[in-house]
Amino acid sequence: MIYFQCDYAEGCHPAILEALQRTNMEQTPGYGLDDHCERARAKVRAACGRPDADVHFLVGGTQANTTVISSILRHHQGVISADAGHIATHETGAIEATGHKVLALPSVDGTITAEQVEALCKEHFNSPIKEHTVQPGMVYISFPTESGTLYSKARLAALKAVCDAYGLPLFIDGARLGYGLMSPACDLTLEDIASLCDVFYIGGTKCGALFGEAVVITGEALKKDFRYAIKQRGGMLAKGRLLGIQFDTLLSNGLYFDICRRAVEQALALRQAFMDKDVAMWGNSFTNQQFPILSATQMKYLTQCGYVYEVWGPADAGRTIVRFCTSWATRPENIEKLIADIKAM
Amino acid sequence: MIYFQCDYAEGCHPAILEALQRTNMEQTPGYGLDDHCERARAKVRAACGRPDADVHFLVGGTQANTTVISSILRHHQGVISADAGHIATHETGAIEATGHKVLALPSVDGTITAEQVEALCKEHFNSPIKEHTVQPGMVYISFPTESGTLYSKARLAALKAVCDAYGLPLFIDGARLGYGLMSPACDLTLEDIASLCDVFYIGGTKCGALFGEAVVITGEALKKDFRYAIKQRGGMLAKGRLLGIQFDTLLSNGLYFDICRRAVEQALALRQAFMDKDVAMWGNSFTNQQFPILSATQMKYLTQCGYVYEVWGPADAGRTIVRFCTSWATRPENIEKLIADIKAM
Amino acid sequence: MIYFQCDYAEGCHPAILEALQRTNMEQTPGYGLDDHCERARAKVRAACGRPDADVHFLVGGTQANTTVISSILRHHQGVISADAGHIATHETGAIEATGHKVLALPSVDGTITAEQVEALCKEHFNSPIKEHTVQPGMVYISFPTESGTLYSKARLAALKAVCDAYGLPLFIDGARLGYGLMSPACDLTLEDIASLCDVFYIGGTKCGALFGEAVVITGEALKKDFRYAIKQRGGMLAKGRLLGIQFDTLLSNGLYFDICRRAVEQALALRQAFMDKDVAMWGNSFTNQQFPILSATQMKYLTQCGYVYEVWGPADAGRTIVRFCTSWATRPENIEKLIADIKAM
Amino acid sequence: MIYFQCDYAEGCHPAILEALQRTNMEQTPGYGLDDHCERARAKVRAACGRPDADVHFLVGGTQANTTVISSILRHHQGVISADAGHIATHETGAIEATGHKVLALPSVDGTITAEQVEALCKEHFNSPIKEHTVQPGMVYISFPTESGTLYSKARLAALKAVCDAYGLPLFIDGARLGYGLMSPACDLTLEDIASLCDVFYIGGTKCGALFGEAVVITGEALKKDFRYAIKQRGGMLAKGRLLGIQFDTLLSNGLYFDICRRAVEQALALRQAFMDKDVAMWGNSFTNQQFPILSATQMKYLTQCGYVYEVWGPADAGRTIVRFCTSWATRPENIEKLIADIKAM
Repeated sequence: MIYFQCDYAEGCHPAILEALQRTNMEQTPGYGLDDHCERARAKVRAACGRPDADVHFLVGGTQANTTVISSILRHHQGVISADAGHIATHETGAIEATGHKVLALPSVDGTITAEQVEALCKEHFNSPIKEHTVQPGMVYISFPTESGTLYSKARLAALKAVCDAYGLPLFIDGARLGYGLMSPACDLTLEDIASLCDVFYIGGTKCGALFGEAVVITGEALKKDFRYAIKQRGGMLAKGRLLGIQFDTLLSNGLYFDICRRAVEQALALRQAFMDKDVAMWGNSFTNQQFPILSATQMKYLTQCGYVYEVWGPADAGRTIVRFCTSWATRPENIEKLIADIKAM
Repeated sequence: MIYFQCDYAEGCHPAILEALQRTNMEQTPGYGLDDHCERARAKVRAACGRPDADVHFLVGGTQANTTVISSILRHHQGVISADAGHIATHETGAIEATGHKVLALPSVDGTITAEQVEALCKEHFNSPIKEHTVQPGMVYISFPTESGTLYSKARLAALKAVCDAYGLPLFIDGARLGYGLMSPACDLTLEDIASLCDVFYIGGTKCGALFGEAVVITGEALKKDFRYAIKQRGGMLAKGRLLGIQFDTLLSNGLYFDICRRAVEQALALRQAFMDKDVAMWGNSFTNQQFPILSATQMKYLTQCGYVYEVWGPADAGRTIVRFCTSWATRPENIEKLIADIKAM
Repeated sequence: MIYFQCDYAEGCHPAILEALQRTNMEQTPGYGLDDHCERARAKVRAACGRPDADVHFLVGGTQANTTVISSILRHHQGVISADAGHIATHETGAIEATGHKVLALPSVDGTITAEQVEALCKEHFNSPIKEHTVQPGMVYISFPTESGTLYSKARLAALKAVCDAYGLPLFIDGARLGYGLMSPACDLTLEDIASLCDVFYIGGTKCGALFGEAVVITGEALKKDFRYAIKQRGGMLAKGRLLGIQFDTLLSNGLYFDICRRAVEQALALRQAFMDKDVAMWGNSFTNQQFPILSATQMKYLTQCGYVYEVWGPADAGRTIVRFCTSWATRPENIEKLIADIKAM
Repeated sequence: MIYFQCDYAEGCHPAILEALQRTNMEQTPGYGLDDHCERARAKVRAACGRPDADVHFLVGGTQANTTVISSILRHHQGVISADAGHIATHETGAIEATGHKVLALPSVDGTITAEQVEALCKEHFNSPIKEHTVQPGMVYISFPTESGTLYSKARLAALKAVCDAYGLPLFIDGARLGYGLMSPACDLTLEDIASLCDVFYIGGTKCGALFGEAVVITGEALKKDFRYAIKQRGGMLAKGRLLGIQFDTLLSNGLYFDICRRAVEQALALRQAFMDKDVAMWGNSFTNQQFPILSATQMKYLTQCGYVYEVWGPADAGRTIVRFCTSWATRPENIEKLIADIKAM
């Protein structure tokens, strides 16, 4: 069987394992205070063009989202998110478990607009009974979104402007950041991301690492005491260097970007193959996730060919939206075989 | 410099790195549903003599404590702990952040007694205003404790009996479980541990793994929905197999026990060396942590010899309690050198 | 000015003030353990036909909702509610502040259906990744709803059956319970309510009391330790008798029902007056809240006549939905005057 | 039977009932936005000498403590309190239920010292692993304390100075504030209280009101968004005017102070009577709570005389500490009778 189901089916890029092997018996301080972490932080800052940024390494996405959001909000505040946002759907109420409501905005393609955020804020702050409702306290978006879509630089800048107008920190979940930045449809650089939000993370788990997300805080007011939040939310790894070593490796010689770019190219080749076969694509993803809308026959065929993919949801005419993911680990020969099988479908 | 400061200064046992290397490009389902985890679970169950146990792998200790405790308690309940318990002191209020009070009992050596728990329960449940105070909902102990002490089988059985009498699940934090079980002062087996509590964990982070704790739930009432708790508290690793592979390795051919036994032997050799030099030892640890009480001169000497140790707290006569830890990774030559230096101190 | 804006503009029914006066210098135990509370509890049980029910008196609605819901749910569970439910909209995230997500179902008229709850439960419990999402743990409805609509006996029974099938306690927010039960459109009795849910409350604040809600727990599993929850959530009134005296008075000689019936009759007379004037009514309320859809001219006219009403929201054609409430305190002469003014509108 | 058990055994001062009666059928806006509340706020500000203060009326003490504390702290912070503080002992973990640890300091007489707070802060902020422990975020004291003791002006000023040095808001629980201020042992005025803390409340429940506490916020940084906190924690009374009417009455013509002074005088007369009889007093209370240490014979005698008092705890030699409270409602003839009975004891 060949997995295209998700982008976390394998271990990690071989260079990381090699670095872990090389450093294994070094003795270092714990909790992220070692030299590997320090070096990785410097590389993150350099890549973001933000020497002033605070950088923290967390183990996973839900943990990063929970830690960042709960460190920002006061008790009576909630976080604005697309209704399809990961925090609104697939984190078992982790945000609510810290006491905060997710203020979900309707979204067709996974993104939200500056206008939506502004309308919500206007309605709230102009209400005579505003204290009977949850106060918007920050904005959360995913880049790329859960359905592979992207914000343009103009849209992100507009969103940031509204956030600034209402004093709302903007947080970007970058679990698949590399696959977004390396998309040909993306007009944003990592420096742009860093300057158009207050805190974001560079996803490692889905982009070459064993695990790990590099949280980058550029908003001055959000930096204080963040390590308390990490510890309290269970995210302070005793052997914190494991995260430092991984990000140090990924950010050396552009490795992170190279492996993500390749995965996106593979995904777009799949996309083309499906479209050449007159298969409609759900949504508008130019990143490493592709969502063809398949008939039952097509699904059966691809399953028989040995592919494992994710069932995403029902479509019209008895068809089904499915997801094929590529990743840093996708083998070229598997892509070639899949494209051939799509052609023969 | 030679670190004896803690037991998480190095990476992991080479056999684990080798297993990660070997399995790296395998494609597996995520979130702990893969074969490696299944195999590791079977080995944990076998080692515990509890084929009925539920086994879950979490990344770290604070996360494991928070997830287990919050999954058991109802909102109006608290967790009984020694005042020196890790959850009471060094987890940044992680338990309180889930809404629960830590009901701290005074402790001289890090342990609590059946009598203390019974007295607290009697006082609470007999009070005419009991609903004005937090209801005891479970008991947390560490084995070994934070200061290296151990419960005897008789004491643990007595504690369990009181817990059962009051309907309180008993939870054992086993972050250093291996170092406890392999101590010559220990009269408990892993099977005993499993049968004398309702939930515990086999610590990996400090006992040979890169990271990871194997939570073992034997109490039937505690099993339901535990995976929800893991996800909600940010502990569900996407590449869950990383934990399965590590525990599969540690529990093969008795590796876990062998490396912990060796570390305890090294620690006891250090203990003997200090005592031969008429250095008093703080507390009563026969595990991998040793707490000599040193004069300023002695501390300075050992520091000049290149050793890094932890300052634990002040003692009388201007002396200081310090901590020397051994671990699975401690090199024999470093122990020999340290013993020689103690002799020459 | 004459207020029709809400149903809590005045103090309390004179009989309550008289009772407070009469008992003022009595010395009683605190915290609801006095004879007045005991007598009121007996009357509540009798009125509900449930001698087995536990009855607790809380100060207000948000407090009652928060206390009941947080006492039932485990940490990974959420409460199903209509998206217009009070807990989902106007309690400043009080439920989320206890760690729980409100699982909002779309609703046109403020009610939810058995089918909706069943569909949500099926989707959740059949999901292969259910533990990544919040588990439905109970159902909350309002009777009457926030927009004055009612569940029929058949619909409530169907909802209860689904709740039972999935093990979900059903909780009825009865802040305006009297106005619902006394509606000519209602085919439910108080006994029916008590037998078709697991916990509900008889609203006092809006139905004749100074303040207070009588929480009635019929579900056996929900009774244990509820007083802890009251105290923890700040709802245990030192002079608990104030609540007992009020409910004792309201439930004597059918006072509660009489005053609510009269208010509903007044509201329906207003409804008729508006409809006679060809004013469309929003929704379908046969309780004490009426929602005429007025033109700007009509609104201005009624304001000039001295009436204060609530602006509910925009309607089509430049018109506005407004709310007129009657209550136990509405003076007949004010209703007569308003009806005359509507005619002249 | 004559109750001296607590200071909330009766209803309220007759002037309050009279005011409730007089205003009962007035129609006012809800949620504390009415004229009665506004007038009461003005009187509170005037009495405190702080025209800049924000004043909010809450229903009870636990609610006030929870709302104030949770509105101030960030998630990783805790509140410093005496170990005998009400929030540490008798609120069913209400503070922890909002996610925050109570950092309890040992106390002999119910007070804590500036030195204790400074030592805790120094230890925390100087610790190399401070982020592994809860950060002190504010200080809570009771005035008078739960055992009737008082802070002198000098001690309170010293405490405030340390709080300011560490940026910790100081919060005074004034559930019995009137009985403290009116004690002959008190050298503080209400103005002093208001200027030597950042937020406090004037207790009504125990000092003449049916219920209610007037929260006074003088710290500028604490004022923002407090009404959200009130609503979220279930403390926003629909008929908020009930609180306004009560405090308006209590603060007219010095009523609050007069009734509290009289109660303290009665308590001190009891104190003298016990001491004249060579009964030792526990602690050092010159407020409305008195704690004689009685023999079993003495207890039996006073019980047979018809007095109800509170058993506080065991003392030496088989004796028992008991509590006699006076209040605004204590009848002079009952005090005279009790003094006579003590003499005859």
